Amino acid sequence: MKREFRQAWRSNLIEIEPYVPGEQISAPGLIKLNTNENPYPPSPKVAEALSDFSVDALRKYPDGGSGALTAALAAYHRLPKDMVYVGNGSDEVLAVAFRACFCGDDPVLFPDITYSFYPVWCRLFQIPFQEIPLDGAFCISPRGFHRPNGGIVLTNPNAPVGIGVGQSFVEDLLEANRSSVVIADEAYAAFGGYSAVGLLEKYENLLIVNTFSKSRSLAGMRIGYALGSPPLIRALEAVRDAFNSYPLNMIAQVAGVASLSDESYYQERVRAIVETREESVKTLKALGFHMTESLSNFLFITHPEADAKDLYEYLKANNILVRWWAKPRIRDYLRVTVGTGEEMAVLMEKMRQFLIRKAKD
Amino acid sequence: MKREFRQAWRSNLIEIEPYVPGEQISAPGLIKLNTNENPYPPSPKVAEALSDFSVDALRKYPDGGSGALTAALAAYHRLPKDMVYVGNGSDEVLAVAFRACFCGDDPVLFPDITYSFYPVWCRLFQIPFQEIPLDGAFCISPRGFHRPNGGIVLTNPNAPVGIGVGQSFVEDLLEANRSSVVIADEAYAAFGGYSAVGLLEKYENLLIVNTFSKSRSLAGMRIGYALGSPPLIRALEAVRDAFNSYPLNMIAQVAGVASLSDESYYQERVRAIVETREESVKTLKALGFHMTESLSNFLFITHPEADAKDLYEYLKANNILVRWWAKPRIRDYLRVTVGTGEEMAVLMEKMRQFLIRKAKD
Repeated sequence: MKREFRQAWRSNLIEIEPYVPGEQISAPGLIKLNTNENPYPPSPKVAEALSDFSVDALRKYPDGGSGALTAALAAYHRLPKDMVYVGNGSDEVLAVAFRACFCGDDPVLFPDITYSFYPVWCRLFQIPFQEIPLDGAFCISPRGFHRPNGGIVLTNPNAPVGIGVGQSFVEDLLEANRSSVVIADEAYAAFGGYSAVGLLEKYENLLIVNTFSKSRSLAGMRIGYALGSPPLIRALEAVRDAFNSYPLNMIAQVAGVASLSDESYYQERVRAIVETREESVKTLKALGFHMTESLSNFLFITHPEADAKDLYEYLKANNILVRWWAKPRIRDYLRVTVGTGEEMAVLMEKMRQFLIRKAKD
Repeated sequence: MKREFRQAWRSNLIEIEPYVPGEQISAPGLIKLNTNENPYPPSPKVAEALSDFSVDALRKYPDGGSGALTAALAAYHRLPKDMVYVGNGSDEVLAVAFRACFCGDDPVLFPDITYSFYPVWCRLFQIPFQEIPLDGAFCISPRGFHRPNGGIVLTNPNAPVGIGVGQSFVEDLLEANRSSVVIADEAYAAFGGYSAVGLLEKYENLLIVNTFSKSRSLAGMRIGYALGSPPLIRALEAVRDAFNSYPLNMIAQVAGVASLSDESYYQERVRAIVETREESVKTLKALGFHMTESLSNFLFITHPEADAKDLYEYLKANNILVRWWAKPRIRDYLRVTVGTGEEMAVLMEKMRQFLIRKAKD
């Protein structure tokens, strides 16, 4: 009895199934293609800004509203400042947005195959949700989203399948959903997808979320942001100030501003990644792989004669990390981040070896 | 009708009263004594570590579990690593802890005058709570906490009153509350308060929260942490991974580790702040101020002949920022952060002038 009494406090602890991010292993010579990181370093302007930063300033609190970074993002997207929100990585921005914008009773809708953090946030905040199945080609079927809902989340291009939708699709979705908030998660849009920024003027219920982690090579700095109408941004700010009023440290704010000042650097790197992606597609097809049409910095691939889990493990044993999920509809697929040309060449060679061994078995 | 339909999405937005942090003004020559920042810069080891950091590493995600910083904190507190949790400032750690540890039906208890973020987190997470009045001398009356509860939060020393409690008080509280989690917020303990770290071995339901913002001069870097039994830490980790699995960027992790490597530097600065505090107490008493006995880096002061709001505004007009709240029991008080000796001398001189003008009226 005494033991039980002493353990009673445990009954007040949360029980929740968390999100499981890709493995963050660092081993010498590891080719890391499992978390969609950018293979190129951030702009030299970021290094410059950090070396100019006066460490003594750290004794004070940062600007909780990240004013300079908000202003730089507003200028970059040609929007007023009150349409921009900045957070500690786009995961935090999305978490805040879910809590801020999905307070209705109807279920929030998103595809059954998409960023697997969405159902976790719903459970954390007790938001009802419904997963709408992608069609057999892993495309979003718009009719699934024509039903009463408390919000919609569209990842565009979608992860992990890489497929993107264009303006007419997004606009149809918005026209059919005037009475709830539509979040467009555009983390991968820079690699060839469509960005709905141009629709913000017309749809006050559209919130676009983006990140500095992928196209801006700053995953290690945690910078995300949202663009939307002033009432949406105010709701996000209210949740921020009810959760953690200083989400970005001073250095992240400085790095973010510096990164936005070197657009040509990033455009060049993004172009290189897209080129490597298209070359990889050709090689993969020659090896017999099938894949979706990716508009992102990763490829979603399957091979009729190779077990995806076996291939994942073979690559891992050969110091190449890609992503595989033990999930119903996608267990035959691998998601492979587009690395440098050199990294992809090593990957292709290893896959070729795997397939040869397989054929001999 | 059309207008209403178009605005229906707004009904899904959250309505919440956020926390209001102290003003973050930066004006030339401003003496900022309103947010309990440390008047001294962080250790030179932090600057060194940041200049050694390779910016190219930022293209990758950080270690979500902040392994090196967790290990350094564990070594510092002589605890195993599974008793340490690291977050993006102690506000985020507290928010995560509230969500992780306060899932019961009984109200969570904390003083009516304490860190004003507590009720905000309760409202955000829909946690029932009850505020237990401090006594007339702004002390915590232990009997108020001897009732069924879903958790307890004890800020020690308490803010904004500065009063601390010792080991026997904390242990009595823990003995009387074996069936819920007790959070001890020790943000200010380094300035002369009692830290309950020694009790962690005995009480599995004790969670201690601390910050690098005050005694370690890193408010701008956002580093907080919690110490507690492995099941408590696991609950916090589950909430972290259901909210934002990479809460600290790489630079914050590096700065935190560097800061822990220079203990003598911080001990010296803390000693200087405590000395300045005690000198300030003498001067304030000579000026006719009354105050609580502060064990923190701030003073909670009142003057029988001065309106606190008038004094706050007079100081602000003279480029000195202190904190005043338009709240029932404390509206006659100011909270003044202990700055450098020079800053406090300017403050005292301005207060003297205010009192002289007041006497002439």
